[in-house]
Amino acid sequence: MNKRFLNSLIITITLLIFTICSSAVAQEKNQMVRLAKLVIDSAQLDSYKSALKEEIETSLHLEPGVITLYAISEKHNPTHITIIEIYADENAYKSHIQTPHFIKYKTGTKKMVVALELIEATPIVPGIKIK
Amino acid sequence: MNKRFLNSLIITITLLIFTICSSAVAQEKNQMVRLAKLVIDSAQLDSYKSALKEEIETSLHLEPGVITLYAISEKHNPTHITIIEIYADENAYKSHIQTPHFIKYKTGTKKMVVALELIEATPIVPGIKIK
Repeated sequence: MNKRFLNSLIITITLLIFTICSSAVAQEKNQMVRLAKLVIDSAQLDSYKSALKEEIETSLHLEPGVITLYAISEKHNPTHITIIEIYADENAYKSHIQTPHFIKYKTGTKKMVVALELIEATPIVPGIKIK
Repeated sequence: MNKRFLNSLIITITLLIFTICSSAVAQEKNQMVRLAKLVIDSAQLDSYKSALKEEIETSLHLEPGVITLYAISEKHNPTHITIIEIYADENAYKSHIQTPHFIKYKTGTKKMVVALELIEATPIVPGIKIK
């Protein structure tokens, strides 16, 4: 193996690390950010959380345009759920709501959701990550 | 250069990529997650957002235990701010609120904040990232 090959290898690996670490940078400008605030029927909370978990994991795995779906339940009011939704752009969102996994979640949890408020949002520091 | 050296190099680089991409994994179990909901005096909104931006950027840069501070302003109600705060653990949070940059933010924005609600939260899918 010669020096030229090693240099190429190092350059390729550096580019790979750069790509891994900055894959979302180009998307930040057009991102669609939203808060979803839900109240869930307490008798169905476990089923709801399980359906939401499956929907989030599938969306993040299959859809590059779903940047995050960070969902929390309030500790002292666990039926109150908030989800920070970030999509690469409006098209990514439109495509997301047509996926089989989203439709399964939406129809499957319809009778569990007591209240739903969707709030369009603007990030104050765009591009912030979760370490 | 021999094959053994190349193998060591590849193993080292693989470990480096793994470390970069999973640096927070060990912290997820004890994470402290909170929603901060604020209402800001509309006349001071720009000053507030600027102070918050500085505080967030400094905290994420200097404090490994601040996992994220994702702040949004509601599009149709921009004085309403929500921040998802994630700390590695309770100690990371206690240390955070004693830093000079947090104290500067807290004292500097005291008269801008009309209302503040802090809500302890549990993530529904721990370990979710922002792509």
